[in-house]
Amino acid sequence: MQSDIEICRNTPLSSIATVAANAGLLPHEFDTHGKYKAKVHPQCLQRLHTNQDGKLVLVTAITPTPLGEGKTVTTIGLSQGLSKINQSVMACIRQPSMGPVFGVKGGAAGGGYSQVAPMDELNLHLTGDIHAVTAAHNLASAALDARLYHEQREGYEAFEARTGLTALKIDVERITWKRVMDHNDRALRMVKIGLNEEGKTINGFERDEGFDISAASELMAILALAKDLNDLRQRIGRIVVAYNLEGKPITTEDLQVAGAMAVTLKDTIAPTLMQTLEGVPTLIHAGPFANIAHGNSSIIADQIALKLSSYVVTEAGFGSDMGFEKACNIKASAANRAPDCVVIVATLRGLKANSGHYDLRPGMAIPDSIFNPDQAALEAGFENLKWHINNVHKYGIPAVVAINQFPQDSLEELSELKSLVKRFNPDVKVAVSTAFGQGGEGTIELAQHVVEACEQPSSFRPLYTPEQPLKEKLMVVCEAGYGASTIDMSEQAKKQLAHFEALGFDNLAVCIAKTPLSITTDSAIKAAPSGFSVPIRELRLCAGAGFVYALSGNVMTMPGLPDKPAFMNLDLDDQGNIIGLS
Amino acid sequence: MQSDIEICRNTPLSSIATVAANAGLLPHEFDTHGKYKAKVHPQCLQRLHTNQDGKLVLVTAITPTPLGEGKTVTTIGLSQGLSKINQSVMACIRQPSMGPVFGVKGGAAGGGYSQVAPMDELNLHLTGDIHAVTAAHNLASAALDARLYHEQREGYEAFEARTGLTALKIDVERITWKRVMDHNDRALRMVKIGLNEEGKTINGFERDEGFDISAASELMAILALAKDLNDLRQRIGRIVVAYNLEGKPITTEDLQVAGAMAVTLKDTIAPTLMQTLEGVPTLIHAGPFANIAHGNSSIIADQIALKLSSYVVTEAGFGSDMGFEKACNIKASAANRAPDCVVIVATLRGLKANSGHYDLRPGMAIPDSIFNPDQAALEAGFENLKWHINNVHKYGIPAVVAINQFPQDSLEELSELKSLVKRFNPDVKVAVSTAFGQGGEGTIELAQHVVEACEQPSSFRPLYTPEQPLKEKLMVVCEAGYGASTIDMSEQAKKQLAHFEALGFDNLAVCIAKTPLSITTDSAIKAAPSGFSVPIRELRLCAGAGFVYALSGNVMTMPGLPDKPAFMNLDLDDQGNIIGLS
Repeated sequence: MQSDIEICRNTPLSSIATVAANAGLLPHEFDTHGKYKAKVHPQCLQRLHTNQDGKLVLVTAITPTPLGEGKTVTTIGLSQGLSKINQSVMACIRQPSMGPVFGVKGGAAGGGYSQVAPMDELNLHLTGDIHAVTAAHNLASAALDARLYHEQREGYEAFEARTGLTALKIDVERITWKRVMDHNDRALRMVKIGLNEEGKTINGFERDEGFDISAASELMAILALAKDLNDLRQRIGRIVVAYNLEGKPITTEDLQVAGAMAVTLKDTIAPTLMQTLEGVPTLIHAGPFANIAHGNSSIIADQIALKLSSYVVTEAGFGSDMGFEKACNIKASAANRAPDCVVIVATLRGLKANSGHYDLRPGMAIPDSIFNPDQAALEAGFENLKWHINNVHKYGIPAVVAINQFPQDSLEELSELKSLVKRFNPDVKVAVSTAFGQGGEGTIELAQHVVEACEQPSSFRPLYTPEQPLKEKLMVVCEAGYGASTIDMSEQAKKQLAHFEALGFDNLAVCIAKTPLSITTDSAIKAAPSGFSVPIRELRLCAGAGFVYALSGNVMTMPGLPDKPAFMNLDLDDQGNIIGLS
Repeated sequence: MQSDIEICRNTPLSSIATVAANAGLLPHEFDTHGKYKAKVHPQCLQRLHTNQDGKLVLVTAITPTPLGEGKTVTTIGLSQGLSKINQSVMACIRQPSMGPVFGVKGGAAGGGYSQVAPMDELNLHLTGDIHAVTAAHNLASAALDARLYHEQREGYEAFEARTGLTALKIDVERITWKRVMDHNDRALRMVKIGLNEEGKTINGFERDEGFDISAASELMAILALAKDLNDLRQRIGRIVVAYNLEGKPITTEDLQVAGAMAVTLKDTIAPTLMQTLEGVPTLIHAGPFANIAHGNSSIIADQIALKLSSYVVTEAGFGSDMGFEKACNIKASAANRAPDCVVIVATLRGLKANSGHYDLRPGMAIPDSIFNPDQAALEAGFENLKWHINNVHKYGIPAVVAINQFPQDSLEELSELKSLVKRFNPDVKVAVSTAFGQGGEGTIELAQHVVEACEQPSSFRPLYTPEQPLKEKLMVVCEAGYGASTIDMSEQAKKQLAHFEALGFDNLAVCIAKTPLSITTDSAIKAAPSGFSVPIRELRLCAGAGFVYALSGNVMTMPGLPDKPAFMNLDLDDQGNIIGLS
């Protein structure tokens, strides 16, 4: 079989203007960026607002292995399958970060015959939205450090007298806004900035700092949750970057940089239109993490796609305890729109990895032996899939199971898994997907199940309402959401909770950052654990995004490069074509 | 008068496809990026190579005040003037850095009625080239620190045995590649990276580091000097990022990251086409500094424009001792193409500032009193203009003087300045330009002079040839180029020179980084000094760009933000339009 980039390069694509016109957009409603990308202006919603909304299909997964279970392949493949059975359909996915493209994981365009194309343009730069997020984010940092420097150097009174500005009196120990970089760069995790040659102060005020990867920027979550440009501007202004010496929050508005940040982000408000290898129009917009942020593509992209097509297929990061929980409790609430049907992606490999019968440790390669039929392991791991089916039903949404087939899978075992699902719950439809190898042809049965499921009555129930106190929201996600029996907050977290309540942030949503490799907070615990405790080490405020996130365990917000990173394979050939991208 | 952005918004523009077609490009030779920008593929040169080249007009200036003397306004205005007198013309300018847009200086689109439009798109992001430079640059940094970390953590032998890679044995004290950020961010000038919590090493190997602004990246100079994508790839691979413990250079090729950097920069090879307010097609490409780099827009953009039009107007940073010297000795040599005519921009304000009659210090506002007629100051400052005229003639190129008129200027004094030029050298044509207030109408006389000057015989003579030793090149630029009588190399610089010679870099060009505010290396020395000495503190190698740069005095490669930065004025209005950009 050809490599992803070869398949992509050998597939004829339509011009993006044709794709846009076929999707129902008028020429003034989009701007092309090269032959295969267009920015779609959200103003089109004014014309389209009387259209009936299509059905929103959310793709989630079982508890994944570190390699992922193929959610994006299934999302793209399913959209192509829906198109094959003559449904009008669009896909909505997140923009990949360049860090993992150069690191270990590779790109995020799907794969095989279920890709967004051209995959190199999706994986690198796209239409510049992540770069704009990085620039706007670091502008706030430069503004903060410049203000700190000028106020400290001159003294608050002299600074105020000379400039006419009010001194912000930033508490250098309580700066919460780190810088960002769209790379896997471990050396930037902990840094000291503002260093000076001896006896000088021209380089600013020395302090501890760190860099996160750009996808972890609060601005990325804001972009994904904003309703429109004005909402984006207002949310930016609510970002708390530090506290002053009296413990009061300092916002980007206080720094007078919120407007410039919005100016920098202005063009990011427009989702990027591309196409799948089979021509399904696909909107790519925002790329927030699914732990410290909510892990879903944007509300604006969904809104546009729902007005243009009968089915919109989108995905949520990691397993259903992670991105799907946040899709329901954070995104759906901000969008006032819940999914109509949820597809749970399972693999034989992933279920057996969830059995506890294999000695799998993070960083280790998954042994090929996992593909050998092993009924005991499959049955043990199936507990995990049951958990995720029940989890989706808990929110009142119909579920469909997609078994993402690998070439090494045994047909008997695939059939066995289908039987397990049917025996567990005859109302839950299950289909094997060969989206990777066959594109839309490989998801026709899945697509038919999805169409049926979308006709089922859905009675969406999020786990909490904004009015509930923050602590109650955290408890309900851990207990009702994960099945934990207790929540164990550190003293620091308790203090932070009290502080956020005192500041009036009690109505925010909660976003729990934990390992995606287990339903618990311990990546070694597999299948469908219950009765566990969730430790909450620390809380952090994202007042602009509209949530408080809780760190449970170590969540790495700046990845590192391995000793043989993916970038070593990348180059240009004599014709200027990219080689080695996957 | 309206603000720049108001003028820009109120001027009707053609679609960029129309501009491209009018410029002579075929539809497959460019990709539109939105309504008013297009990427022009250098492959068009294959079709155009039999066309005769147009005339290359380079705009330089007297020794400027820190506010600049209006080179970009004159460049854009002159291109519009040439169009008014029915010449086919294009302009080629550098892409502005976003740092100064948010800091003090503001944008770099020209101004008034001589702007590249839309000025907000030029000044922010454009088509993403600077972001791509930043990303590619910092990828090399991440690669370097990851390699350092893996080799150090494991030990060289174990690292080699396990990975099959050859240990690079990076000397942590001799890492020459700093990170970059496209912001004015003084707190990043000197930093410490790779810090760890006590007893841990997971965040890498601790070391001193610094950030430059992205325009200072060697990649920016490479982009401006590359002949094509293949040359770009080869130049990237020659970049020296560090030395090993034996003093041997370590390149990006050694890190196996050169290919991925080229992949990241792939789309930057295509210049961005925009238009002036009067519809002159303008290519924007690369934006290297004019001190530590050569300060000129790209060779590729010039090549394309010269094939498409009879006149190409471009500019070189700072005064003629700076960007113009480098245009002749670095760019012209790499391009094998010298300017046919040079326009020297002078202002009454700038000449009087050069008189030494005013107490002007860096960072201080220029007093309004400088606009009052003052014959003695003008005559004293005129020495500076004479120096720059002679300097241009030294290279064998015809010179034209453009007096960029300010609204506060006295007509008598403007007339006096014209007389001074005519008396000094009757062969040098001089015209007053009102490009800012009147657009092309304000440069018709200047345009006529330029057309005449381009007909004069030009006998281009660079100051040195590649074969001369590095030291001789440095001496000839200081002595013949600046008029210094001696060059004073530090012990460190002498050692570095010997090292670079030993490494075989003797054939590189030299690029002297000094203050632009004086012909000497002391910004307080005005007019036309002679007999001075040029201290060379340190040499740095840009083997990919193809020059060694010499630091003479302190050259700041990461600006800082003032206490009231320009970003404080920026915001979006209710319609989503940008306000406060200048």
